[in-house]
Amino acid sequence: MSSTCLIIGNKKYSSWSLRPWLFARYFNIPFEEIRLSLYVPSFYTQILQYSPSGRVPVLHDAGRIIWDSLAICEYLNETHLAGKGLPSDGDARAVARSVSAEMHAGFAELRKELPLNCAYDKGAVSISDSAQQEVHRICEIWRTCRMKYGQNGHFLFGDFSIADAMYAPVVLRFASYAVKLETIEQTYLETILALPALQAWISAGKAETEVLLSQER
Amino acid sequence: MSSTCLIIGNKKYSSWSLRPWLFARYFNIPFEEIRLSLYVPSFYTQILQYSPSGRVPVLHDAGRIIWDSLAICEYLNETHLAGKGLPSDGDARAVARSVSAEMHAGFAELRKELPLNCAYDKGAVSISDSAQQEVHRICEIWRTCRMKYGQNGHFLFGDFSIADAMYAPVVLRFASYAVKLETIEQTYLETILALPALQAWISAGKAETEVLLSQER
Repeated sequence: MSSTCLIIGNKKYSSWSLRPWLFARYFNIPFEEIRLSLYVPSFYTQILQYSPSGRVPVLHDAGRIIWDSLAICEYLNETHLAGKGLPSDGDARAVARSVSAEMHAGFAELRKELPLNCAYDKGAVSISDSAQQEVHRICEIWRTCRMKYGQNGHFLFGDFSIADAMYAPVVLRFASYAVKLETIEQTYLETILALPALQAWISAGKAETEVLLSQER
Repeated sequence: MSSTCLIIGNKKYSSWSLRPWLFARYFNIPFEEIRLSLYVPSFYTQILQYSPSGRVPVLHDAGRIIWDSLAICEYLNETHLAGKGLPSDGDARAVARSVSAEMHAGFAELRKELPLNCAYDKGAVSISDSAQQEVHRICEIWRTCRMKYGQNGHFLFGDFSIADAMYAPVVLRFASYAVKLETIEQTYLETILALPALQAWISAGKAETEVLLSQER
C-alpha cells in the first residue's frame, strides 16, 4: 500500500466514498485507491482490516487511519492543502462548515428515495413530500451559497471546497432522476457534473457489474 | 440578542443542542441561550427566524450564523479557542475528527431505541441486535481513545475536546438506560456525567414540563 491510500466502495453506489475521492482528485492529491465490493460476504472482514468503523470510505495516510467522508476532507484540507479546501474568509468558512455538516447528518428521505446509482438516467420519479422538502432545502443552500459567497468562481464558495465534495453525490442523484431546478442550481449542477474527475468516477461506476438491490429503484 | 447566542431545543430531549452547549460551557465561552420548545406549532416559525436549516442548534456570533452541532463546535474551536478544542497532536486530531464525524452521521438505531430523556432513570431495557452493535462500537471507540490517546487526562483525548461534546448525549442515554459497561468506559461515563455544566443541563431538563411523545419510551 502506498503512503496515501483511500479505500472506497462500489463507484456505482457509494455516495460516501465519492466525497473524499473527488476532493482529493480535484486538488491532485496523489493516492492509491482500493475498491471493495459493498456488502458481499467478504466485505465485512475486508473493511475491518482497513477501518475500525467497518465502513467506507477510510483513508490511510502516512501511518494514520482517518475514516468518515467529512473527517477525511477536513484532514486532507489541513495536512495536504494548507487550508485551501475551505474558504479563507471567516464568514464563508463558517457557512461552508454548516452546509457540509447539514448534508453529512441529514437528508435521509432523499437518500432513501433517490438512491445513488451512477448508471441511472431514469428521468423524473415521484417522491414523498418530505423528500421534496429536502430537495427544496438543497436548492436553497446551493442558491444562497452561489449568490452570497460564490460570485468569484463557479463553485458554492467560489473556489472548489469541502462543501462541493459533500454535495457531489446529490448532483448525481438530481441528474439521474431529472430533478427540475432553477437556472442557478442547474448551472451549478452542470459545473460539478463536467468535472473530469467526476466523469471518470461515473464511467467507472457504469462499468461495474455488481448489483445492490437496496440501491436500485 | 448579545454578540454570541446559542439557540437550543428542550434540554430534556435535544441531544443535538447539548453538544455545542456543553462544548461552549466547558471552555467558558460566554453566550446567551435561547431555548425553543421543540415541535410545538410555533417552533417552525421561530426557528426559521434564527436558522436557515430550520433546526436547532444554531449559533449567532458577531453577525455570523452557524448551524449544526459539529459545525458549531469546529467554528468555536477555530474562532474562540485558537484550536485547543481539538488535540494538538496530528495523529490524535485525525482520530478525534473521525470519531466525531462517525457519531455525527451514525448510530441511528441507538438514537431511536434509547431516546435521550434527561428525566429518565429507566434501568436496563431490551434493544435490537443492531442497536446492541452500535453500543459495542461506541464502547470500542471510548476504550481505544482513552487507552491510546487519553492517558494524560480524563477525557477521550486527554483534555476535553469536540469528541467529548459529540458523545455527551450518548453518556446520558447509557446512564438513563443503565447500559452495562466495562470499567474504562464506565469511568469515562462518570467523568462526563460529573461535569458541573452537564449536571446543570440535566437539572434544567428535568424541570421542563413539555412532553414529546417521540422521545418517551
